This record gives sequence, C-alpha cells and structure tokens, in this order.
Amino acid sequence: MNESAKLEPDAASNREEGRAFNPKFGGDGLATCVTIDASRGDVLMVAHMNEAALRATLATGVVHYWSRSRGALWRKGDTSGQTQALVEMRVDCDQDAFLAFVTVAGDGGACHTGRRSCFYRAVPLGKAGAVTLEFRDERVFDPKAVYGGNG
Amino acid sequence: MNESAKLEPDAASNREEGRAFNPKFGGDGLATCVTIDASRGDVLMVAHMNEAALRATLATGVVHYWSRSRGALWRKGDTSGQTQALVEMRVDCDQDAFLAFVTVAGDGGACHTGRRSCFYRAVPLGKAGAVTLEFRDERVFDPKAVYGGNG
Repeated sequence: MNESAKLEPDAASNREEGRAFNPKFGGDGLATCVTIDASRGDVLMVAHMNEAALRATLATGVVHYWSRSRGALWRKGDTSGQTQALVEMRVDCDQDAFLAFVTVAGDGGACHTGRRSCFYRAVPLGKAGAVTLEFRDERVFDPKAVYGGNG
Repeated sequence: MNESAKLEPDAASNREEGRAFNPKFGGDGLATCVTIDASRGDVLMVAHMNEAALRATLATGVVHYWSRSRGALWRKGDTSGQTQALVEMRVDCDQDAFLAFVTVAGDGGACHTGRRSCFYRAVPLGKAGAVTLEFRDERVFDPKAVYGGNG
C-alpha cells in the first residue's frame, strides 16, 4: 500500500511528511532555533523559542526568542540594535527545531560577548586529556558599550 | 580595572573568554549539536549529545549523539552507512551548544525521512491563521530500503 494513499497516516508521518505546521515544544515549552546569517550562511547563535516567541517572529518578521535566564519573551536587538530580520524559516522533520535565516541590523553582531557569532572558538580534534580551545573570531563590538557594565 | 587583569574572573567570564573546554550539559545531561555539511555549509540536523557522546565524537572523529527516543548512545550511520566524519567542531559562548562540521559517508543523507537535511520544509512568513509548509528538498534515499518498514 502506498504511504500517501493511507487514509489514517500516523501522527509522526503527518508531522514529517505533511504540509501542516504543527510545531512541537518540549516539556519546558521550548523548541530550538538555529539562527543563520542569510547572506553569509554561517550560524550566528542557538537559542530557544516558546510558542509566543515563534508566533511573534512569524507575525512581525523580527526574531523573538524566549530568554531562559530572564524568563521573558526576548525581541533580540532591543538593547543592542542588533535586530534580526527574518528572511526565511525552516522547520525540521519532527517540527521541534527551526532554522531562522536573518539579516542582522546595526553592527551585525549576534553574540553578547561582542562577536558576530557565538561560535567563535574551535574544539581541537584528536587531543587526549585537557582541551585548549582555539579562538577564531574577533569582536565586532564592545559589549560593555552596548550592554553596560563596570569591569 | 581591566577585565583581563582580574585575578578571579567569574565563572561565566571564564567559560566565555577562556581557552578551557568546559562543556555545560543541561539538567537532562544534554547539550545541543548543530550538524553542518562541511563542504556545502548547510545545516543537516539538530541533535543532542551527552558527555559520553561528545567524548566519543572527539576521540574517534566520528559523530556520536545521544538518542532521546532510544535512550542510548548513537553512532550516526551505524544502520544507514551515513556516518559523519568530523572536520571541525565549534563551541558557543556559554559552552552548551556545538557546531559539528562533517563529511557524510554513503549517499550523503542525514535525515531519517530520506533527505540530506532534516530542514526540508520552509515556514511561509507573514501568513495569518493556518500555515502550509513548503517542501524545498527531494529525497536522496529511500528510508524503507535503509531502515526497513512495511508501509
């Protein structure tokens, strides 16, 4: 019997092969969002969305996350000016993870440490014992100037 | 006082600006891994690693995950032949998410539905009400031939 001819396909098959958007949030109410620079193609950050953040993102075209540390809806860029305009969104097979392709406003930063991307360090391969990370990216902004701080 | 001159920088600063690899796993013992095709640059999948999976990945150069559905260490490709050879690994600012740049063996697939990538559907933007997903990628292998099934 052809899969597509089934009258009652199971829920997993519907979620994976159907056209209905039926995002799945975990027990904590969150799904993972991987945010990608739409023009350069590199991953900027990994963060979380609850249903409200996802809906706000799709409704406004500006990426919203759920801040686990603050326990609040988080319109990225409200403090820094580094808003993320949504260019395309993808959803994965089981609809519990998203890719957000974005254009970053302001200085183009996404990481609160001052880099474009949060993934500014490489983990060396094939090392036994203690691993020393390798820095690969420079800061593009001064986080103290953007977020404050008195260090 | 200059941040870098602090004698006892706080733990968060160490984790973000230090060279020590100190991965942070959540309450469920898991961290997020975003897996990227090293030659094409696109995201193939988002999965989870516990500490054992991360250590096995770094020690062997072949990506291992923790399968939440099976509750087991999962060397990707054991069934399908679609093993993922690690080319580079990155860690994010707070060391709870990883990027794994990989070369996929076999037919190049990564998604159990038969596609190269799990992110084969786009979520249309600016739509009110029910959202209809748009398929963007074709299958590259037959999942029934690879994983079995009697549909």
